[in-house]
Amino acid sequence: MSNYRYGIVGTGAVGGFYGARLQKSGRDVHFLLRSDGDYVKENGLVIESKDGDFNLPQVHAYSNVLEMPKCDVVIVALKTTQNHVLPNILPHLLKDDGVVLVLQNGVGSEVEIAAIVGEDKVIGCIASICCNKVGPGHIVHLDYGRLVLAPYLNNYKPGKVTPKMTEIAEDFSAAGIPVELTNNLILVRWSKLVWNVPYNGLSVVLNATTAELMSNSDTKTLIINLMQEVIAGGKNCYCFIPNAFIDMMLEHTEKMVPYRTSMKVDYDQKRPLEIEAIFGKPLSMAKAAGNHLPLIEMLYQQLKFINARMGG
Amino acid sequence: MSNYRYGIVGTGAVGGFYGARLQKSGRDVHFLLRSDGDYVKENGLVIESKDGDFNLPQVHAYSNVLEMPKCDVVIVALKTTQNHVLPNILPHLLKDDGVVLVLQNGVGSEVEIAAIVGEDKVIGCIASICCNKVGPGHIVHLDYGRLVLAPYLNNYKPGKVTPKMTEIAEDFSAAGIPVELTNNLILVRWSKLVWNVPYNGLSVVLNATTAELMSNSDTKTLIINLMQEVIAGGKNCYCFIPNAFIDMMLEHTEKMVPYRTSMKVDYDQKRPLEIEAIFGKPLSMAKAAGNHLPLIEMLYQQLKFINARMGG
Repeated sequence: MSNYRYGIVGTGAVGGFYGARLQKSGRDVHFLLRSDGDYVKENGLVIESKDGDFNLPQVHAYSNVLEMPKCDVVIVALKTTQNHVLPNILPHLLKDDGVVLVLQNGVGSEVEIAAIVGEDKVIGCIASICCNKVGPGHIVHLDYGRLVLAPYLNNYKPGKVTPKMTEIAEDFSAAGIPVELTNNLILVRWSKLVWNVPYNGLSVVLNATTAELMSNSDTKTLIINLMQEVIAGGKNCYCFIPNAFIDMMLEHTEKMVPYRTSMKVDYDQKRPLEIEAIFGKPLSMAKAAGNHLPLIEMLYQQLKFINARMGG
Repeated sequence: MSNYRYGIVGTGAVGGFYGARLQKSGRDVHFLLRSDGDYVKENGLVIESKDGDFNLPQVHAYSNVLEMPKCDVVIVALKTTQNHVLPNILPHLLKDDGVVLVLQNGVGSEVEIAAIVGEDKVIGCIASICCNKVGPGHIVHLDYGRLVLAPYLNNYKPGKVTPKMTEIAEDFSAAGIPVELTNNLILVRWSKLVWNVPYNGLSVVLNATTAELMSNSDTKTLIINLMQEVIAGGKNCYCFIPNAFIDMMLEHTEKMVPYRTSMKVDYDQKRPLEIEAIFGKPLSMAKAAGNHLPLIEMLYQQLKFINARMGG
């Protein structure tokens, strides 16, 4: 195990869950919070997990980044819609030889974060997890939890796994988190879009859970059509995803507990939707590679209308 | 003017408005109603119209078709989702030499009605009108009102205007309704789809008025994309619609008062949506003609999900 100090930026469901697991396994973890700072300083974190519930009555919680110690590994688990705050946070929080783990949805955040801390300090991180924050410092982990780490290079070209990435992976592994290392970041991010594009998008537009969308033959067909477009959109972008991946995603989703997607939770809580990371930026990348994706573009337009009406 | 006796099947906003105008101009009109029969028998009809308000305190209103006299012209103004009742109505109501005017949305109703009364008795009728029923026997006419009549031939092949159609047109004209006769029914029906597909569909899926959809640049672009697909879908179906028609529709809609589409009204009132007439059947016709319409198909799938959830 490393002696790395971890900083969590954005202690919502995902950041809170992984940070809590790292602390429980003995790592030194420091949590930056926005709304729940005072509550978590006082009461710590409560994790209800399908892998076993646990409490952390005492955590290092902060509302102000200037009070935090510099960290070896900063895990960015904010919503991508909040990335505009990162230029005021990362320079204070990251050690000179530290790295940033970008634990966010969609594509494009690595580009923004590389512009702040330098490309060599950016590691992509993709979580496959169903979890929700149900109250201040209170996180429910429903299903899955696996992480994939991959290096970021300019324009999402495939890179090379570093020793530091291996050490971080070992820390997660010691915390009981299944973790995988890979050199093709965009392939993993794009593969996750195969799930996120149809389920996040349709769950908001049609105000539905994954189970409702899967139990209707029309929306199930639409989901498959959208997944095929995501795969088609990855061509010429270092992303070859086999069509069999669709069957795997469908099967996973059908086995999953009925689930509100992260975008549906944002919608229900009237938070800005992560439309650019999951739809807008992938559409731009696909277009630049010569791929036209009419169904995804329509879903993007519908979501932008909904987001604008919410005041986003 | 003719001596035709008119029967109105489905005295909602559209059937009620045109029937009332015919009666006001001196025609003999008989109204079949479902829910508001007793109220209208007692109180007649109230029309608030941008062309002038009027009341008809006494109308021939019926809840039971068997009590109605046989008619020369039966105007079917039911929702297409109610067409399953027509085999029990039309044979009782139509004179041997009578005709049925199909005043409904979308495509396909003429096929169903020809199967009941014979192809030579079917006339297509397309209304461009903004009107709503706001209470029992109470109709508000907001804008437009023009009718187009066209003969129906097997599979929507172009036909020939008959003397009887001319007489009916004269009756409408005498009632102050702008009316046009044409020989290409499917061209007029398909042209109306250019408006109905985007506005009816998106107003339900996005829970919005036409004005909201037009004031957002994303939904406005989507509307244009959908209109282009409707036009493309008409190719090889006797429907050549010039692209300039789109600009005309957009301009009309921008000038229109903010309007809940007919499908949005059905949705708000939890009535079945006219999805097959406006989406399903046109998609089938386009497909048979070799035209693939991915955006309209996606909207159709979204609407079928919503309709199924409503219990439709």
